[in-house]
Amino acid sequence: MKSIDPATLGLRALRASDLDELGRRLGEGVLLADAERLSAYSHDETEALRFPPDLVLLPRDARQIEAILAYANQERLAVTPRGAGTGLSGGALPVCGGIVLGLERMNRIREIDPRDLVAVAEAGVVTADLQRAVEERGLFYPPDPSSRESCQLGGNIADDAAGPRTVKYGSTRRWVLGLEAVLANGSFITTGSRTRKDATGYALTQLLVGSEGTLAVITAATLRLIARPRATLTLILPFPALESAARAVERLFSEGFDPSACEIAERAALVAVGRLESLPRELLQAEAMLLLELDGDDPERLLGQAEAIDRFASGLGAAPAIVADDAAGQRRLWQIRRRVGEAVKQLSDYKEADAVVPRSQLAALVEAARAAAARNGLTAICYGHAGDGNLHVNLLRGELSGGLWHERRDAAEDDLFRAVVALGGRISGEHGIGWTQRRFLPLAISPAELAAHRALKAALDPCGILNPGKIFPDPWISTSITSSNGGGR
Amino acid sequence: MKSIDPATLGLRALRASDLDELGRRLGEGVLLADAERLSAYSHDETEALRFPPDLVLLPRDARQIEAILAYANQERLAVTPRGAGTGLSGGALPVCGGIVLGLERMNRIREIDPRDLVAVAEAGVVTADLQRAVEERGLFYPPDPSSRESCQLGGNIADDAAGPRTVKYGSTRRWVLGLEAVLANGSFITTGSRTRKDATGYALTQLLVGSEGTLAVITAATLRLIARPRATLTLILPFPALESAARAVERLFSEGFDPSACEIAERAALVAVGRLESLPRELLQAEAMLLLELDGDDPERLLGQAEAIDRFASGLGAAPAIVADDAAGQRRLWQIRRRVGEAVKQLSDYKEADAVVPRSQLAALVEAARAAAARNGLTAICYGHAGDGNLHVNLLRGELSGGLWHERRDAAEDDLFRAVVALGGRISGEHGIGWTQRRFLPLAISPAELAAHRALKAALDPCGILNPGKIFPDPWISTSITSSNGGGR
Repeated sequence: MKSIDPATLGLRALRASDLDELGRRLGEGVLLADAERLSAYSHDETEALRFPPDLVLLPRDARQIEAILAYANQERLAVTPRGAGTGLSGGALPVCGGIVLGLERMNRIREIDPRDLVAVAEAGVVTADLQRAVEERGLFYPPDPSSRESCQLGGNIADDAAGPRTVKYGSTRRWVLGLEAVLANGSFITTGSRTRKDATGYALTQLLVGSEGTLAVITAATLRLIARPRATLTLILPFPALESAARAVERLFSEGFDPSACEIAERAALVAVGRLESLPRELLQAEAMLLLELDGDDPERLLGQAEAIDRFASGLGAAPAIVADDAAGQRRLWQIRRRVGEAVKQLSDYKEADAVVPRSQLAALVEAARAAAARNGLTAICYGHAGDGNLHVNLLRGELSGGLWHERRDAAEDDLFRAVVALGGRISGEHGIGWTQRRFLPLAISPAELAAHRALKAALDPCGILNPGKIFPDPWISTSITSSNGGGR
Repeated sequence: MKSIDPATLGLRALRASDLDELGRRLGEGVLLADAERLSAYSHDETEALRFPPDLVLLPRDARQIEAILAYANQERLAVTPRGAGTGLSGGALPVCGGIVLGLERMNRIREIDPRDLVAVAEAGVVTADLQRAVEERGLFYPPDPSSRESCQLGGNIADDAAGPRTVKYGSTRRWVLGLEAVLANGSFITTGSRTRKDATGYALTQLLVGSEGTLAVITAATLRLIARPRATLTLILPFPALESAARAVERLFSEGFDPSACEIAERAALVAVGRLESLPRELLQAEAMLLLELDGDDPERLLGQAEAIDRFASGLGAAPAIVADDAAGQRRLWQIRRRVGEAVKQLSDYKEADAVVPRSQLAALVEAARAAAARNGLTAICYGHAGDGNLHVNLLRGELSGGLWHERRDAAEDDLFRAVVALGGRISGEHGIGWTQRRFLPLAISPAELAAHRALKAALDPCGILNPGKIFPDPWISTSITSSNGGGR
């Protein structure tokens, strides 16, 4: 893909002399500029987008990142921070070339403290590695993005990653007590603390969470842990209509159930999975499936809850629940949900839209997705995190030619996100804005709110070197909110 | 108290012509400048501090606030936003005179939505009024600052108010999905949404929570609700030593208990309460009391948990738990905890310090408080939110003369907060920095982090009109983070 000219963002292209100077400042083994490496860091998991960087830097500690950013800021070079590159909105794409700054070598779990129930880990730690390490000690770090076996904590934090357990435990944001980070000017900061409560100054920690690498490079985090729940139970509820499944989701929460997952897949998604996995008989006729997980300390109690849920679901027309309380059975049920994405994506080329609405609008979101697709001659298949009102809408290419597909896909996405915003929803539930959702941002936030975004960006990264081209709908960044009489102080 | 000269903050004093102009723009009944009113708005609940404003404005809607801020920003007038004035760090004090902007008339609960489990309420709604309104519908808004019968949601959000339930449910921050606010330049913004997940742009909502009225005036909020727990149970555990009470707190959480309150009072606090209330026999000899609340849907299960807690506490030397599962009994036990503050404050003039440490350092914090007091010839009495590591340390004046008291109090606070930071703690757990904690801020955050704070302040309030003199240790505000080569963009 053709990179953006960095000059349009007030930046300059990398020169051979920059490589020399960075090599001198960083020492051996941090700079990588061979063609294979540049190609490997030219993409993340967002569609087929590719933007090759000019240089990959893999620092070993925060000191090296300070040196890199101080130099890049002085020289106005683009720096795109990168975790494992598992993002789905193009956040790690070096769209104007320059430097990709990979955090993968900073992968030490520094501490797991069972007394304070915190972990301190570097940005490059793989999420599942942290989870296993804390679980071995009877502890629990809940955020579970589906890429957890490869994604990294720094990327999770920069994107406020979520996943099935978010419905009970909140997204990554809720688990971050403090950060270490390097600002665009090369200065190292720590934010927050390891206390469980903190009213000391602005919520810098929270501002950096979800800022997608545009405000600072996160190098380490202090994360909150809890005791590991002793029991889990999984159940699948087959519904005869999407509407009744959506009503069951609503009722579940208003009745005070607190499931640790509440996932949905519509019929077309189940049919796709049925090509990869043999489905339980009860699902073959279902128009929608809910998968729920319950967790807690008392297996008997979870069974009691499952029975109560089964009863009220049956009142809404659901077939009897399929319940699994042993590990193997739970894995089998989860497998159905976990393979949905893969199964749908095997049907055709696709575009995945990450839409979120208020929980009561879940059925309306599916309707809107179908309508947006149909209006543009496409098919939509929906599944995802029903309890959060967050669905992944897959628009399928089918047999369309390239040009027509791009045109219709773009039009359908546009229709979809307009409908989502009209339902009180947002243009990203968990994937972030990154590169691909930028054009929808003005649908979701007002010019005044966008101006506040620009002012924050300019405050922390005045030269605009960090992850340039991302989040903002246009590359131009104003330097401050204008005061009402047009002047600063 | 002598007000700061607004000119030192780049602002100007109010003139008679400003009153005329604001009166013209706002219409009848919004401006109040009589001596009685100015006196009533000259203080909050922080010690005996008084700073009279020049003018009190009580707008009826966000439009009027837009007009006020646009004018104040243009004219460089100080604006101090104010809720109910229940703050304990002087955040609502108009320290350089100017305008106090009270939100009390914007007190409408706009909506309680049992399907999406959200409430939309204006900034001036009294916290307990919202709680009662949602509880009538079987719903629950957990944040419970001790001033909840008078404090307002806007102030709660601006200060990220907490309280006993924070240990289970998090502080106000966790319950705010979106905000309406007016920026310093008079522009109205909405942040967030009513969806339960949102990866759309920067966490502006979270940045405004806890910003103490220095970044924007919050006018309304969309708040997350949950189903109301059907049962609660309260227990008091008398401990023979502070250390064993602190160990019990640690163990409670590492074993996976999830109490909805975990409060502590040391012996001296119990003795003080004993002058107002007859205490249960078991507490008369105790060196420390823990009060726990458990909540959930199953009373039997709560009793089982209480028994398990009683058993392990007894292994740490605690006398048998006093358990109450009926409403009257629970009120009686809570009364002991609730009257601690009042009882301690009746002993003497006092200074209350709001210290928070990692949970494992609870006993060390009490030790540090005692040592800091003793070193300066004072007495310290500690109580508070043990589960969060957050204690209110009351330094008592006793018989000291005014001058000596002020000197020793300041020195003891200084010693205390240095020790707190050395324990990994923070200089405010829940009261905020406001006016009185500013001098300790450099103990808690580095120059680079302070520079980031200044840059954010300058980005959203370039003229510095919003709550001037607060949070920052000195009144001077730089306009941006300097980039490494000294230039902006």
